[in-house]
Amino acid sequence: MIYKAHIIDTPTKDEFRIIPNGYIHVTEDGKIAGIYEQLPAELANEPITDYGDKLLIPAFYDLHVHAPQYRNLGLALDLPLLEWLETYTFPEESKFRDIAYAEHVYRRFVHELWMQGTMRSSVFASAHPEATAKLMDIFREAGLGAFVGLVGMDRNCPEAVQNTTEQVQAFLEQVATENDPLVKPIITPRFIPTCSREMLKMMGKLAKKHNLPVQSHLSENKDEIRWVHQLMPETICYADGYRKYGLLGDTPTLMAHCCYTKGIELRMIRRHHVMVVHCPTSNCNLGSGAAPIRRFLDNGIPVALGTDVSGGHNMSVLRVIQYAIQTSKLYQILTPRKEAFLKVSEAFYLATKSGGSFFGQCGCFEKGYDFDALVVDDAYLNHEKYELNQRIERYIFLGDDRDIKVRFCAGKEIKEPKL
Amino acid sequence: MIYKAHIIDTPTKDEFRIIPNGYIHVTEDGKIAGIYEQLPAELANEPITDYGDKLLIPAFYDLHVHAPQYRNLGLALDLPLLEWLETYTFPEESKFRDIAYAEHVYRRFVHELWMQGTMRSSVFASAHPEATAKLMDIFREAGLGAFVGLVGMDRNCPEAVQNTTEQVQAFLEQVATENDPLVKPIITPRFIPTCSREMLKMMGKLAKKHNLPVQSHLSENKDEIRWVHQLMPETICYADGYRKYGLLGDTPTLMAHCCYTKGIELRMIRRHHVMVVHCPTSNCNLGSGAAPIRRFLDNGIPVALGTDVSGGHNMSVLRVIQYAIQTSKLYQILTPRKEAFLKVSEAFYLATKSGGSFFGQCGCFEKGYDFDALVVDDAYLNHEKYELNQRIERYIFLGDDRDIKVRFCAGKEIKEPKL
Repeated sequence: MIYKAHIIDTPTKDEFRIIPNGYIHVTEDGKIAGIYEQLPAELANEPITDYGDKLLIPAFYDLHVHAPQYRNLGLALDLPLLEWLETYTFPEESKFRDIAYAEHVYRRFVHELWMQGTMRSSVFASAHPEATAKLMDIFREAGLGAFVGLVGMDRNCPEAVQNTTEQVQAFLEQVATENDPLVKPIITPRFIPTCSREMLKMMGKLAKKHNLPVQSHLSENKDEIRWVHQLMPETICYADGYRKYGLLGDTPTLMAHCCYTKGIELRMIRRHHVMVVHCPTSNCNLGSGAAPIRRFLDNGIPVALGTDVSGGHNMSVLRVIQYAIQTSKLYQILTPRKEAFLKVSEAFYLATKSGGSFFGQCGCFEKGYDFDALVVDDAYLNHEKYELNQRIERYIFLGDDRDIKVRFCAGKEIKEPKL
Repeated sequence: MIYKAHIIDTPTKDEFRIIPNGYIHVTEDGKIAGIYEQLPAELANEPITDYGDKLLIPAFYDLHVHAPQYRNLGLALDLPLLEWLETYTFPEESKFRDIAYAEHVYRRFVHELWMQGTMRSSVFASAHPEATAKLMDIFREAGLGAFVGLVGMDRNCPEAVQNTTEQVQAFLEQVATENDPLVKPIITPRFIPTCSREMLKMMGKLAKKHNLPVQSHLSENKDEIRWVHQLMPETICYADGYRKYGLLGDTPTLMAHCCYTKGIELRMIRRHHVMVVHCPTSNCNLGSGAAPIRRFLDNGIPVALGTDVSGGHNMSVLRVIQYAIQTSKLYQILTPRKEAFLKVSEAFYLATKSGGSFFGQCGCFEKGYDFDALVVDDAYLNHEKYELNQRIERYIFLGDDRDIKVRFCAGKEIKEPKL
């Protein structure tokens, strides 16, 4: 199949690549075979879908999002992290013992991922195995890609959101051998404060045994960091608590936030090839802080973006791109280091090619990459003679789900999931 | 006329007033005669418009917005203020010599104010009298309230965006005597760097002569402040430059930004009853800084919100409410003063009752107030059993123009303006 449109992506972070009226050739396996300014003669007989004046951009990837917090979206943002968890978040997550409630909320959650053009995500479920399996089913049914994590947590939180090492192990052993190309498990200790050493040890072992990726939280909030130091006085930094148990880069690893990651910890996550998931909306909403993203990039640390719903108030990765740019400007002006802010192309790159790399070859229109794409109709925004580089910028700052007309994941057009 | 819906407003900033299935009685002059939980017997025969499960909230007020920058919305946000003006903004504003171009853009601008539920605004036009008069006409045609300012600027900027003291004076003398209830002139020196002493002096005199309000920019950016100090070494602070010419509170005065207003300047604007217009989206986008809003509120300084398009990237006051909350949290965490962040009700109050006070009795559903209101259908957001206090919070964080079903300005339903 050939798709024709104004093609825009970021093979490198430094600028948009723009191909007006370009062509993408996608083969039956859903992979990109070529991208062209002019259609080559040998493809002249392939069927063409022509999207006219619309934009064709890579799909979005949300590398940190909590599915069972969906009901709290846009609510309850008046407390810092630890009080917020106790007061609003754990009580909501406790409801996911009820599989009917879980299915109801998870269908809405997956529907909204679809709506916002998020074709793949790395998701925290709750501590409940049955509901987590249901979430994986709903993703499969929708055709969206996801790493889904049963959250391990067995201390320092209400019983209703706890599970045991045995339960988590049993679930992981079961799902680890399923071989779904799009929906996969991910080892998910919530964070050091809620995980016993036994839980962490088991998780590290299983990560290695089944070569499963890992996701967790790191250095989000100052009180949290102090608490971790009290709980694990034997570690040299917060990240070291994960490292000691084989949960820091022995397999591909996502660490969300890293607002206060510097010095020893920064060098440790770099050495262990950890991918930082930057969640600027959440870090604003909970007053957590601002992550030193420019420093991570200058150090060659891979960075992706996350909505962190419901600490983040919005399921749209487009909005997170925008907040990443804006908060980097406030960070520049309000902190002494005066690090350069993120350019628009850089933030877009984080949300597409950089985040996409966690799922394989995704997030860019290059040969061999999965065709994960959005067709964007920005006619309302394009009311004057805007150039294509202006149209993508205006879409990032002003567009929303209304503008997304067609969605592709791994080459397949994804229709609206049922609610 | 009686309107029935879930009524939500902020008579004080500290909390939302919520009247489920309440009634508002609006008389023929467009003013609120009463607000009721139960309809009084004497009103039983009045016609009722029942909005069912929808929300009825005060309309939004945008107290700082640049109409001739509308084409640049969501674009060109990679430079700090002074370079941004030179590179992107002045070249765009220079086009408003062309009255056809001006009418084309201004119709879109007013249409979008309507779309976003902004029923009254205080607007900077350009330096061109003819285009500014056209903008006033378009506002009148639409039925929206506005203070419209011909921008005075006669130095330190390209000739194409300059005017002269005589031109500005002639325009102001002409419009000052028009007696439109909704669309009115406002004295608008752009900012000290682009206004000669003659310009400022004339403006101060006319403000007093015709009792016209004043709007300008104050202490937005550090380089700007340094420049003002060089240009007016005789002043004790930036605000003092306006004060010396009768442009600081001799008549009702709006000063946008005030990111660096403290000490002497803070005491000066308090003494002169200046209203600060907080523009957090713009201050993020241009990396200007973060204004000490809590300090202003604690000092009894009135504060309104402004989109500051196109330094701000979005015409929606709803979004500015949200950014005001969020940036106050980043300000708290990133600066040493640890001032309390804005509560949701406080930011909503700034956008409604506080901003509305500049237009008279507006922005709240109290007896004698103008009925400026929006009917909001949040059915999509209200997918679970949310309480009304949660519904307003979710609308602020997640809603957009799609949700606004009916708009009232001064008691009159405002239909979609023609483009």
